[in-house]
Amino acid sequence: MEKKTLLTDCPDAVGLISKITNICYKHQLNIIHNNEFVDNPNQQFFMRTELEGVFNDETFLLDLDHALPQGSHRQLISSARKRVVIMVTKEAHCLGDILVKAFDGSLDIEITAVIGNYDALQGLTEKFDIPFHHISHEGLSREEHEAALLAVVQQYLPDYVVLAKYMRILTPEFVAQLPHKIINIHHSFLPAFIGAKPYLQAYERGVKIIGATAHFVTNDLDEGPIITQNVIPVDHNFNASDMARSGRDVEKSVLSKALGLVVDDRVFVLGNRTVIL
Amino acid sequence: MEKKTLLTDCPDAVGLISKITNICYKHQLNIIHNNEFVDNPNQQFFMRTELEGVFNDETFLLDLDHALPQGSHRQLISSARKRVVIMVTKEAHCLGDILVKAFDGSLDIEITAVIGNYDALQGLTEKFDIPFHHISHEGLSREEHEAALLAVVQQYLPDYVVLAKYMRILTPEFVAQLPHKIINIHHSFLPAFIGAKPYLQAYERGVKIIGATAHFVTNDLDEGPIITQNVIPVDHNFNASDMARSGRDVEKSVLSKALGLVVDDRVFVLGNRTVIL
Amino acid sequence: MEKKTLLTDCPDAVGLISKITNICYKHQLNIIHNNEFVDNPNQQFFMRTELEGVFNDETFLLDLDHALPQGSHRQLISSARKRVVIMVTKEAHCLGDILVKAFDGSLDIEITAVIGNYDALQGLTEKFDIPFHHISHEGLSREEHEAALLAVVQQYLPDYVVLAKYMRILTPEFVAQLPHKIINIHHSFLPAFIGAKPYLQAYERGVKIIGATAHFVTNDLDEGPIITQNVIPVDHNFNASDMARSGRDVEKSVLSKALGLVVDDRVFVLGNRTVIL
Amino acid sequence: MEKKTLLTDCPDAVGLISKITNICYKHQLNIIHNNEFVDNPNQQFFMRTELEGVFNDETFLLDLDHALPQGSHRQLISSARKRVVIMVTKEAHCLGDILVKAFDGSLDIEITAVIGNYDALQGLTEKFDIPFHHISHEGLSREEHEAALLAVVQQYLPDYVVLAKYMRILTPEFVAQLPHKIINIHHSFLPAFIGAKPYLQAYERGVKIIGATAHFVTNDLDEGPIITQNVIPVDHNFNASDMARSGRDVEKSVLSKALGLVVDDRVFVLGNRTVIL
Repeated sequence: MEKKTLLTDCPDAVGLISKITNICYKHQLNIIHNNEFVDNPNQQFFMRTELEGVFNDETFLLDLDHALPQGSHRQLISSARKRVVIMVTKEAHCLGDILVKAFDGSLDIEITAVIGNYDALQGLTEKFDIPFHHISHEGLSREEHEAALLAVVQQYLPDYVVLAKYMRILTPEFVAQLPHKIINIHHSFLPAFIGAKPYLQAYERGVKIIGATAHFVTNDLDEGPIITQNVIPVDHNFNASDMARSGRDVEKSVLSKALGLVVDDRVFVLGNRTVIL
Repeated sequence: MEKKTLLTDCPDAVGLISKITNICYKHQLNIIHNNEFVDNPNQQFFMRTELEGVFNDETFLLDLDHALPQGSHRQLISSARKRVVIMVTKEAHCLGDILVKAFDGSLDIEITAVIGNYDALQGLTEKFDIPFHHISHEGLSREEHEAALLAVVQQYLPDYVVLAKYMRILTPEFVAQLPHKIINIHHSFLPAFIGAKPYLQAYERGVKIIGATAHFVTNDLDEGPIITQNVIPVDHNFNASDMARSGRDVEKSVLSKALGLVVDDRVFVLGNRTVIL
Repeated sequence: MEKKTLLTDCPDAVGLISKITNICYKHQLNIIHNNEFVDNPNQQFFMRTELEGVFNDETFLLDLDHALPQGSHRQLISSARKRVVIMVTKEAHCLGDILVKAFDGSLDIEITAVIGNYDALQGLTEKFDIPFHHISHEGLSREEHEAALLAVVQQYLPDYVVLAKYMRILTPEFVAQLPHKIINIHHSFLPAFIGAKPYLQAYERGVKIIGATAHFVTNDLDEGPIITQNVIPVDHNFNASDMARSGRDVEKSVLSKALGLVVDDRVFVLGNRTVIL
Repeated sequence: MEKKTLLTDCPDAVGLISKITNICYKHQLNIIHNNEFVDNPNQQFFMRTELEGVFNDETFLLDLDHALPQGSHRQLISSARKRVVIMVTKEAHCLGDILVKAFDGSLDIEITAVIGNYDALQGLTEKFDIPFHHISHEGLSREEHEAALLAVVQQYLPDYVVLAKYMRILTPEFVAQLPHKIINIHHSFLPAFIGAKPYLQAYERGVKIIGATAHFVTNDLDEGPIITQNVIPVDHNFNASDMARSGRDVEKSVLSKALGLVVDDRVFVLGNRTVIL
């Protein structure tokens, strides 16, 4: 007996839920959870089906492909742990949160490596017996630095790359190597305060709420599909530095929540948005 | 072309989603939205299916009953507006919120009447051209009062009775006339502070958060299945009276949200809990 | 015995709290509540002192002015109800909320009049025996329309003008007549989605949280000092219209909360931010 | 130049703010922040004053004591880091959060030791070069076990003891040794679900919100003065185990927030409540 998750993402058509569940039924696969969503403007159908049973992936997918419309995407995902590479700069909180959660099993991931453009977090990482690669950007062009980063990332063949307050901008070329595989935490409530120093921007605007946003990285800075967001209240007592300090707890819980949803195969990308089932 | 909502609540079995959606498909009914949930401990299956098409209720339900397990409940609900009777005492905020929302269409309900054990809210009610019945409890036993209340309620044949800060306890006999049809707002975050003066209790306990809970009324005071809850932060600056004042905005938005879910046919009762699809 | 609120807003200096409270003490005025804040970057001092006693405003203020630094602002405000003019367009929810709250005393204001550029909300307003002025913008230039609006506003000599989903942009000339006296509710979490159709913008950006912001109106659209903000979670199930529907409850509670703080003399303006004591 | 925090907790009297700030002024101590609160029912005055300057503690306190009413408490606290002993059982999340925060300076504390009744968290603790004491309860009476715990605690002379999901009940005798010095995190939104298995209780009650509460430990289980609380929404999809998993992020952020407030000398105890300035 195995557990697998079927993700279906296809043009909507009449009777899809019926057809897909029929096929599961026919293959004697028990549906533990099923969630579906139809995006009406785009007429796109999404379904996430947790299945249990004895799988013959090939025949099952053959039947499925036969039933689904043209232009469909479907994935049958095993329950193996996802492999993750984390990229960091200097701040410890997001990395520390993920390290502890992987350590105690709250996040079902294998952290294969941590890469930092500074070595500030080497000590913390190595406490958890995880390889740390210090790949400094100093003296290198952006392209040279990214080539070095990619070389290390690709050693580990990760399912996802997590930018845990990694502060350097990644070029489209880098991003193109890992489409919808790079998760970033931006320390503001997007689309407010994109770019640098969002807490200072927030302070100057006099907002009464600050937040953090986890999103997939695309070519446009802080513009990729949003996965999770959360906020906390602030007031006139908070200067930019206070906002940053309070904001850290939100950043880490938002990043870790988004990562949890992604590795749980719950996140579909629809244009520049996400559907989370 | 009509729109109807199918609610299914039955013992779980293999292939249910498949069977039900097949039948919709067979009857050429288009599924606009579908949400399902299986409660594993109780092995109970719930599904809410918004359908659009030309309906022949009789043949559709016949096919459905044939496919569903023994002990199943299913309802095919038209999109007609729900009829509601509201019961009040003296506080205006919950009633006022529902009156304005029914007036501007935000809540798709028909307020057939308002009943108050005081006449304090008669003026406000009649501004909206809704009949107000002042049925005082003074000088009557609980049973006599409730007989008078029921007589008026039943005139209107409401789908739901909403206790909008109606402050008198209802007997099991009254409740039994309207099983899972009475929605109450309790001014605390249940199960904390049941019974009287919850804000005073909250103040004395020194909580830093207060809330409100909308629930179906059962025989046990404030113990029925919870539909919606929400909270706001408070601090040492709030005495019980301040908590009550701030709490009112939560009470009314929680009640109105719960009422919206109920009239949208989204709320299933499972034991003493609710499943909201 | 009277109650008054003293607001002090001045350049910071050593011993200010001491000096001001000394003067209250000397004049036998009892301090019921005191809140102060120093904005360090600007070296600006703010204090809000609720006083009770027998007041001789003139001598008290004389002593105070003598003690405060140059360039200080101070106000001794009686506890009389604030007069408010509300401006509306078509949506009922914010207006309805304020009407009910003024009616039951939750908001300690006198609504002197409601002005609408459509007459859609005339019926609702007149239910509460409040004068409604329908001042259409059609066929008039912006200046002509605003001249008509101002003429009516000034009849009532309001302390504040509340834009309760009033949807037309006001010119700098209009705003200049009522500096920091116009409170607007913008249906987004500023500074995200300024301008028109913020819910559509929010939907397209795929945010997972939407909000509303109450702020003082300045010359720049949606850029004035923020008073209050709040948010609610949304997800892929919400199209722009669903976001708008859910957003209304946030809009009205944020506007009403901001209005409550303002009429309670708790809001100081500091540059483009607010200090709320 | 030094920074110190003055905490005043005394019977209310006329002119207190004036008198206290006068004394600061007289001693040439600059007030950086000042927050005060009067609890009217108890006529108790609280003030927290952050001061900067050259201190002569003795003469300053002499003047202060002379000015304050009988039965006053005042403390002039240096800015030295607080010493903390953490007690744990098996769950890592709260401990891990505090370890990382102390490591990166977000929490300004010195973790002198961690004591666990199991050794499950020894590895994690020692990664941060902090002594771990495994003091098993097995085979010992409650009194014997607590004697062993106290012996170790008192070695370190901590300012505070933090129960980071330490799961054994402490006797009044233990608590009496550390009055208002023991901070516990309870995994529910008190006063709901006191005692054991609160997530199971929450699941059975069908609540739509779960939370966590940090409080000072007193003789009564989960009844001590509440410092901080927070909540997250849940729904029918969450079984007790899911609630526990989601709840952990709330538990750790609530505990760490409460600890931050306490070591920042912001928390006063008033009866069974707290005043946080």
